[in-house]
Amino acid sequence: MGAVLLSDLGTQIIIPVCSAIGIIFSLFQWYLVSRVKVSPDGNVGSSPTNKKNGYNNDYLIEEEESINDHNVVLKCAEIQNAISEGATSFLYTEYQYVGLFMIAFAVLIFLFLGSVEGFSTKSQPCTYNKGMTCKPALATAFFSTVSFLLGAITSLISGFLGMKIATYANARTTLEARKGVGKAFITAFRSGAVMGFLLAANGLLVLYITINVFKLYYGDDWEGLFEAITGYGLGGSSMALFGRVGGGIYTKAADVGADLVGKVERNIPEDDPRNPAVIADNVGDNVGDIAGMGSDLFGSYAESSCAALVVASISSFGINHDLTAMFYPLLISSVGIIVCLITTLFATDFFEIKAVKEIEPALKKQLIISTVLMTVGIAIVSWIALPSSFTIFNFGTQKVVKNWQLFLCVAVGLWAGLIIGFVTEYYTSNAYSPVQDVADSCRTGAATNVIFGLALGYKSVIVPIFAIAFSIFVSFSFAAMYGIAVAALGMLSTIATGLAIDAYGPISDNAGGIAEMAGMSHRIRERTDALDAAGNTTAAIGKGFAIGSAALVSLALFGAFVSRASITTVDVLTPKVFIGLLVGAMLPYWFSAMTMKSVGSAALKMVEEVRRQFNTIPGIMEGLTKPDYATCVKISTDASIKEMIPPGALVMLTPLIVGTFFGVETLSGVLAGALVSGVQIAISASNTGGAWDNAKKYIEAGASEHARSLGPKGSECHKAAVIGDTIGDPLKDTSGPSLNILIKLMAVESLVFAPFFATHGGILFKIF
Amino acid sequence: MGAVLLSDLGTQIIIPVCSAIGIIFSLFQWYLVSRVKVSPDGNVGSSPTNKKNGYNNDYLIEEEESINDHNVVLKCAEIQNAISEGATSFLYTEYQYVGLFMIAFAVLIFLFLGSVEGFSTKSQPCTYNKGMTCKPALATAFFSTVSFLLGAITSLISGFLGMKIATYANARTTLEARKGVGKAFITAFRSGAVMGFLLAANGLLVLYITINVFKLYYGDDWEGLFEAITGYGLGGSSMALFGRVGGGIYTKAADVGADLVGKVERNIPEDDPRNPAVIADNVGDNVGDIAGMGSDLFGSYAESSCAALVVASISSFGINHDLTAMFYPLLISSVGIIVCLITTLFATDFFEIKAVKEIEPALKKQLIISTVLMTVGIAIVSWIALPSSFTIFNFGTQKVVKNWQLFLCVAVGLWAGLIIGFVTEYYTSNAYSPVQDVADSCRTGAATNVIFGLALGYKSVIVPIFAIAFSIFVSFSFAAMYGIAVAALGMLSTIATGLAIDAYGPISDNAGGIAEMAGMSHRIRERTDALDAAGNTTAAIGKGFAIGSAALVSLALFGAFVSRASITTVDVLTPKVFIGLLVGAMLPYWFSAMTMKSVGSAALKMVEEVRRQFNTIPGIMEGLTKPDYATCVKISTDASIKEMIPPGALVMLTPLIVGTFFGVETLSGVLAGALVSGVQIAISASNTGGAWDNAKKYIEAGASEHARSLGPKGSECHKAAVIGDTIGDPLKDTSGPSLNILIKLMAVESLVFAPFFATHGGILFKIF
Repeated sequence: MGAVLLSDLGTQIIIPVCSAIGIIFSLFQWYLVSRVKVSPDGNVGSSPTNKKNGYNNDYLIEEEESINDHNVVLKCAEIQNAISEGATSFLYTEYQYVGLFMIAFAVLIFLFLGSVEGFSTKSQPCTYNKGMTCKPALATAFFSTVSFLLGAITSLISGFLGMKIATYANARTTLEARKGVGKAFITAFRSGAVMGFLLAANGLLVLYITINVFKLYYGDDWEGLFEAITGYGLGGSSMALFGRVGGGIYTKAADVGADLVGKVERNIPEDDPRNPAVIADNVGDNVGDIAGMGSDLFGSYAESSCAALVVASISSFGINHDLTAMFYPLLISSVGIIVCLITTLFATDFFEIKAVKEIEPALKKQLIISTVLMTVGIAIVSWIALPSSFTIFNFGTQKVVKNWQLFLCVAVGLWAGLIIGFVTEYYTSNAYSPVQDVADSCRTGAATNVIFGLALGYKSVIVPIFAIAFSIFVSFSFAAMYGIAVAALGMLSTIATGLAIDAYGPISDNAGGIAEMAGMSHRIRERTDALDAAGNTTAAIGKGFAIGSAALVSLALFGAFVSRASITTVDVLTPKVFIGLLVGAMLPYWFSAMTMKSVGSAALKMVEEVRRQFNTIPGIMEGLTKPDYATCVKISTDASIKEMIPPGALVMLTPLIVGTFFGVETLSGVLAGALVSGVQIAISASNTGGAWDNAKKYIEAGASEHARSLGPKGSECHKAAVIGDTIGDPLKDTSGPSLNILIKLMAVESLVFAPFFATHGGILFKIF
Repeated sequence: MGAVLLSDLGTQIIIPVCSAIGIIFSLFQWYLVSRVKVSPDGNVGSSPTNKKNGYNNDYLIEEEESINDHNVVLKCAEIQNAISEGATSFLYTEYQYVGLFMIAFAVLIFLFLGSVEGFSTKSQPCTYNKGMTCKPALATAFFSTVSFLLGAITSLISGFLGMKIATYANARTTLEARKGVGKAFITAFRSGAVMGFLLAANGLLVLYITINVFKLYYGDDWEGLFEAITGYGLGGSSMALFGRVGGGIYTKAADVGADLVGKVERNIPEDDPRNPAVIADNVGDNVGDIAGMGSDLFGSYAESSCAALVVASISSFGINHDLTAMFYPLLISSVGIIVCLITTLFATDFFEIKAVKEIEPALKKQLIISTVLMTVGIAIVSWIALPSSFTIFNFGTQKVVKNWQLFLCVAVGLWAGLIIGFVTEYYTSNAYSPVQDVADSCRTGAATNVIFGLALGYKSVIVPIFAIAFSIFVSFSFAAMYGIAVAALGMLSTIATGLAIDAYGPISDNAGGIAEMAGMSHRIRERTDALDAAGNTTAAIGKGFAIGSAALVSLALFGAFVSRASITTVDVLTPKVFIGLLVGAMLPYWFSAMTMKSVGSAALKMVEEVRRQFNTIPGIMEGLTKPDYATCVKISTDASIKEMIPPGALVMLTPLIVGTFFGVETLSGVLAGALVSGVQIAISASNTGGAWDNAKKYIEAGASEHARSLGPKGSECHKAAVIGDTIGDPLKDTSGPSLNILIKLMAVESLVFAPFFATHGGILFKIF
């Protein structure tokens, strides 16, 4: 053992202060973005009274849009409004349905958990320390329900704010693109940072406050306290499920529908304002890739914190009531906010992007800088917040861990994230041979493009899996499930930067769309396309992080579930476990089948509507009449709300059904199976889709001899590439990323309901 | 306990007699097929001196090819020769390389297993019964090596004979098609039966003889005897690996290459003789779908027998030297041959096919009849060959099992096979809505076709997995790993019928190709197309059986490995096992990436050659000059030989590397992970591919109002369907079915090397 350098008071100060810094920094970035004016007052771009964009002096306006300047700004503002309104209206509709579900599920949590001790209000002996008295199960039921609702609301706010910021930033990025690619990059990146910091700081702060408030009731019963806190993770992830699935279906129904009629049948470019589905497509980027992604990563963050806390509460930290060590996971996140803040300055202030080819390296540098700095941060936190030696709960026994070992657990997660990021970049960026090979295979048509793309996705799984396996092995060996949980936190410690570069992608995509719709010059569109190509890669990297951390998180949650359900082994050599493993490995396929089919059906509906408009509204193709954008937005909204229910039900009901009827052993198998199988499909789907998208962009951009030999736009090769891109859309933006949530959510749900399953579960086996 | 009704002598008679009956029946079927003459002596079809085809009198010759009858037969004979020569030459080349590998691997087996006790020639105390003396490890090493080579050679012969029969039957089926669809069906089906029975009977006989010969040395040491016999399964599966992968790459390189230039670029029909790759394409069907499939199912059969025998040898059967009960697995297979013989008569003699729409029901009836009859057969064998109660080894303990419980184990495997067959049919036959939906999605182009097809494949996994899980649960609960092994045998007990309907597919496919190349009338081609469409479904069903049985077999082998390596639990909650699970689940993706990419690259080479010929040889397109078929055959041969090495190495080396460096726990995790993940990809890949193929055929055939609205050939919908079909080719015929072998082979290899890993394995963990 040994003394902890950081006092409890210090801990209680550091965490809220860091959260506050994050929020303030985020608001400051928002302020900087807001100085790019999107108003028809004649002051285009940064207002003429202040030539500084942010605090960078003397930039050069490379080019001004000479024609119709005023009109362009007006148009941008109008399009931005349309997108923002569509996104807001979708999210409101979604939240209404999800709100009803949340209330129903909250009741379910209360009833299931309350029933564990028959709704008794008497205190009970603790599970892990029979000598002590703990609060009744009814209290856990109540507080779990409250933290569930808090998690859901925080997730909802995270997604909503992200969307608001993104729709606020898209037109501003377009307008800045007139001044050069560097300005546009900074605007898009800053907007991403707003979301990243707001989400990271907000998530941390709400969790911190909740714990402190709950402690007023729980007092010294930390076991009960942190069990109740797990509801926070469940709430976050449930919300994320609907965000990802609903948003994913929305965005891809619109995108695929728009492309199929616009690009393929009518031969008009992407984002052409004549296409009736074009606004729905741009709305989709914001509700799917931004709001969905935000909820997803917030869920991972909340869950890994909860998993670490619940394991720590029954380890020496919790038993000795060592507050600073107990709050180690929150301290890591606090330091992460500061590290990401410094990292952001490297992109926006310390260096300046001057050419298109500098964009990707700048984003890559973000990953490297944040990882290196964070390693130092972790070392400091581990040194000051942990005793030199302590014990961690390990499936019924206590395991002795040194503080440097825990440092390694967090660090290995962090660095595994970096490796996953790099590998993802390698496989999805058109600067490297894999995507170029895929582009090349378009010479022989769409079929070979698809075959090569699928093979690329499968291959891209190898290194990330080894990286995840290595970090699992290290952290598991050093500190059991606590090690896994903090490794996940390590990977997520730079979440603010990760989200910033991730959100940057859809913002740039929207910016390109607005440029096209506002009829801006070819040169502007080229710049936004370059931003967007880098954005496809960073989106894939973001998905890589999301899935990598989801794997670690769900393993940690799985471990916490197993501990809470009082299982000490999950033996594959028993039929109960093995069938769980097999069926669990099948669930990601079932889920993907549903989501892919949903996108397909919704896209078909969109295609019909777009065709109808082209055929019945005269003058659309000539640009004389405005198409009816609102109907397309409504089709996407309705379809995604309707279609998100079956996959949502599959994920939410499976643990309840398996746990209740087959018991905790089978459920353990299901969780492990879904985890090891889902990770692979999620990674390969994301990367395949990203690669196809960038193979298409590679041909379109024609930046090399090879690329030009495949192009130009409209060539047979390009048509084949467009088909691949369209197929990749649901893979990379709907089914792939939703799988993260499948594996995490089933695990956290099992964890929350573990006491119920352990008491009343396995009915079928009890009967037979 | 209790007495066994069947005497040992009876057992020793029944097994070889049933094998002999199978072989004789197979030769008789061959004789019947051979009566269709393919010779330019003017006697077309059945010779005029004998109007009977088989022993069916008074059939009606519905139609005779009126024009150039003589020439047509001549042409058919010529094409048949070309195909047969190409296939033979490929297999010879393949066998040369594989032969070298087999010898090297045989040496490795001998050295690894011999080293377990330092090449000592002294007898040792038995592993499971320390009181007895067993033969030295060196003897096991030697006999394992011998049985490995025997298994490999038997597999090789099975594949080779299958190919010979198929290339013998294809032109005969074409010629019979002139007389009506019923005649053609019988010829194709009989030829399939030749292969099915030859393979089932031959496999059983060689195994039976080997056991009896080995017993001369081993005497009462049944433990050692049946450990050595496991090499038979390893040999069979190693051969199958190269057969499936090499053959799979061959066939799809040729098919994809031929389609890409022929159908897509030059707009000439499939199997057009002007296409230089057409012979290679038809050769591919025989070396991939026939020889590969034969080796694969033989491997499953050999492995499940070995797994059952090795578990039985350390159970009461082996300990009490109860020969009849010990041979229970072989008796099941013996009865299976008789059951399948009766079943075959239903297709060829008891009923007659008169119309196209009767083909699929007739094939489906085969599955039902064989399953029902076999259930009775299993009941009889279980009643006469098993004591009423006995004990089975269960990871260190002995489990008491009743004979009716073991009957249920076999029966549940058998019926699970039927369910898998039906589900596969539902998802891949164009008589049902899933394929029709996929066809319908072609309206909006290739992208939606691919999205719907992938979703269909994912969805088709659900029911088979539940069926497999249910049979695992039942058989595992009743009789531990022995139960799983006999469940696998139950599924494979109707292997002769399964292979017959499976081999029927490629034969019909070839027949269609020959009709096209020989310039026969449109009506003939329609008939062979109808046969072929049913063949696509049966091929998918065959793959369903293959993967379902592979799952059970590899679980049984896994159990046997775990027993032999003296592990009693495989706990997911240990880092060693969990990382194994995760990496194991990744291997099918790695493997698929390799095989898909191989097909893609080989197809590109083929495309270049075909284009070259079209561009440089004048008169090809006009049909004036014959294209250079041989070069295309050579390209496929060279590419597949070269490309099969990396995936082969991955499968063969993984268990050796993991076992040696990480030890048996991690290896257990890898095996379980590869199993639960590989099964899903294999099923979805096979069904997706089958569905695309039949969606295309659905549009081409235009048999319904809906189908006609999508067609005809050459329409935009049809083009989209062709793209799906081409993408499906490597999925359904290369990567999908090869995965069966991946999961089985790694398991059987681990089983054979288990003593070595248990003694010397886990070097890395020992060092650190």
